[in-house]
Amino acid sequence: MDRVYLDNNATTRLLPEVLDAMIPFMTGDFGNPSSMHAMGRAPARALAAARRAVQQLIGAEAESEIVFTSGGSEADATAIRSALAADPARREIVTSTVEHAAVLGLCDHLERHEGIKVHRIGVDAEGRLDIDAYRAALSPRVALVTLMWANNETGTIFPVEGLAELAHGVGALFHTDAVQAVGKVPVSVRGTDIDMLSMSAHKLHGPKGAGALYLRKGVPFQPLIRGGKQERGRRAGTENIPAIAGFGRAAELALEVDHVAMRLLRDRLEQGILARIPKARVLGDLRDRLPNTSCIAFDFAEGEAILMLLDRAGICVSSGAACASGSMEPSHVIRAMKVPFTAAHGAIRFSLSRETTAAEIDRVIEALPPIVAQLRALSPFGAEEVQ
Amino acid sequence: MDRVYLDNNATTRLLPEVLDAMIPFMTGDFGNPSSMHAMGRAPARALAAARRAVQQLIGAEAESEIVFTSGGSEADATAIRSALAADPARREIVTSTVEHAAVLGLCDHLERHEGIKVHRIGVDAEGRLDIDAYRAALSPRVALVTLMWANNETGTIFPVEGLAELAHGVGALFHTDAVQAVGKVPVSVRGTDIDMLSMSAHKLHGPKGAGALYLRKGVPFQPLIRGGKQERGRRAGTENIPAIAGFGRAAELALEVDHVAMRLLRDRLEQGILARIPKARVLGDLRDRLPNTSCIAFDFAEGEAILMLLDRAGICVSSGAACASGSMEPSHVIRAMKVPFTAAHGAIRFSLSRETTAAEIDRVIEALPPIVAQLRALSPFGAEEVQ
Repeated sequence: MDRVYLDNNATTRLLPEVLDAMIPFMTGDFGNPSSMHAMGRAPARALAAARRAVQQLIGAEAESEIVFTSGGSEADATAIRSALAADPARREIVTSTVEHAAVLGLCDHLERHEGIKVHRIGVDAEGRLDIDAYRAALSPRVALVTLMWANNETGTIFPVEGLAELAHGVGALFHTDAVQAVGKVPVSVRGTDIDMLSMSAHKLHGPKGAGALYLRKGVPFQPLIRGGKQERGRRAGTENIPAIAGFGRAAELALEVDHVAMRLLRDRLEQGILARIPKARVLGDLRDRLPNTSCIAFDFAEGEAILMLLDRAGICVSSGAACASGSMEPSHVIRAMKVPFTAAHGAIRFSLSRETTAAEIDRVIEALPPIVAQLRALSPFGAEEVQ
Repeated sequence: MDRVYLDNNATTRLLPEVLDAMIPFMTGDFGNPSSMHAMGRAPARALAAARRAVQQLIGAEAESEIVFTSGGSEADATAIRSALAADPARREIVTSTVEHAAVLGLCDHLERHEGIKVHRIGVDAEGRLDIDAYRAALSPRVALVTLMWANNETGTIFPVEGLAELAHGVGALFHTDAVQAVGKVPVSVRGTDIDMLSMSAHKLHGPKGAGALYLRKGVPFQPLIRGGKQERGRRAGTENIPAIAGFGRAAELALEVDHVAMRLLRDRLEQGILARIPKARVLGDLRDRLPNTSCIAFDFAEGEAILMLLDRAGICVSSGAACASGSMEPSHVIRAMKVPFTAAHGAIRFSLSRETTAAEIDRVIEALPPIVAQLRALSPFGAEEVQ
């Protein structure tokens, strides 16, 4: 039985073209790009080409604005730490309650151990940022605003361009974790007030082990990892050329993604499920959402149990955030949206990719209703409620 | 013409067996190990197996003592930052003048911007640590001693076990950057006072993008990159499973390396060169040195020029530290050893690997003498000195 993989917000399959771009640097051309001998030449060219591809993917003005990292979490940590170092007089951060753990985990630590005040702006029931609260939190004490471009669980998109403008209004730096957005919706920093932007290759059919921080020219910067002069002294450590070359190829291919086709497939999935399963609701902002993501909560059913039974049927999804798996508590995103208790435990995230087919979607639509019905029949609350 | 690659302290060729171990996770088994569905299972097993392999390579007591990172520089930064956070009353670091840039660069920053006092212990003309100065720098104010196991330029080995014991004598934590040692000499933390140890996969025929920090059980720890619960909450970010699986395989294979054969080849290279080229000297501690490394300084010749001409002859070496390339100044290691001016600019590092053959060594011994002679003939000082 072929597996249906709908967990692409966790990680994506490496495209064969991407693997092809990596293999030369895992075999013959294994040198370091900084080497002065022949073995450094092809890697140095690959590094430059990948940087241009990533630059183009997000519409950055200069190649030098791209700093390669080991991934999204490192890019987030680098941005946040760097912004705090830029102006030690500013000791506040503004973020949201629904950010990725890479942002929230560091903010929690900074608040508890380093005397930083953190404003966590809430969201409404659809996951939209409370703009009034955001405006109220902004002040000249704020070093950094860090708000995600798109939510990993619901796909809800924040209006980052406007939010960045407001941040600049009080002289704060603006960072966005765009790990889930890049490659799924057009993302461009050109002409915006975005100072820093985090990306991850493995979310867009590139390899694990490569990410990048966009760093607008002129933005003050402090490296997280110091040492060698790699990345113009902004990220030390031997460049992971195979992964960076793969990231570059994935960035080129991401420009070709048909977002509309992806959205149509996602809508087919959503409509199929809602038509067949009562007491199911889609979580997130239905007007402004990633085209590949559908987070659906099923009343009176446990998300983990749905996940397990779908897995037995050869369908891979996640419940809550992948990073929070193992825990039976609803994720922080679902709690922030104040999803009612009866539904909060039954949320499933379906995340499609450019490789998802209509046949796969139809398999999920067939498989899911009996699974949910079976679980509800076992629920102490559910049996009569959903007859 | 086949190339002779003698720059293995910069980076090594991925062994075909290592690539084979990585490919499944770059194709079918691309899932995240934390996923609760089927796609997480093989990656989770690979992660556990790699951790055991790395544990065994360095004789760590428990698998949980291995924290995977993106590489050696990240491991170094993590160790140093973590140690400083462990006891905020201790505001001093002891290190040496010949450490890798990943250590010295961060120490410089901590001294300049974060009020940390840094003791940089010097070395003698053979690169051996000044033990009296080291003892004198130790005090209850020291949070961390960080001293490398083996030097990347000269191969000189520090007696880290004894140095760690002395550090513990004043209650300081002990970290060693063992990036160049692991896989080249037997490295074991078992029964020692070493609290933390940095490794890098790509220095031992593993992939770029994977490294590890050994963290002795019970040692206080603060992550550098926070967020997801990966690595027991000690290093956030999606695990780079292909690279980690490759690291595991490389660790297994590293246990099989014939260090004696490597040393004999290195000695053949050294003796061949010294017999044919006058006014050449080997730098470093000849009694306690990595078996694969030979740093030779040629009076009245520029290292960069030798490197270029060797490159034209198809031989890859480095001059000074690879990370310092691009600069015409002798490396900080060579300056710390007070190598005379006439020789300091002419240092070449030859670093062998398990793949190096006697035929390759003989090619270097043939190619080098005319190159050095040619350059000396052009030198304003050299021509008559070395007739």
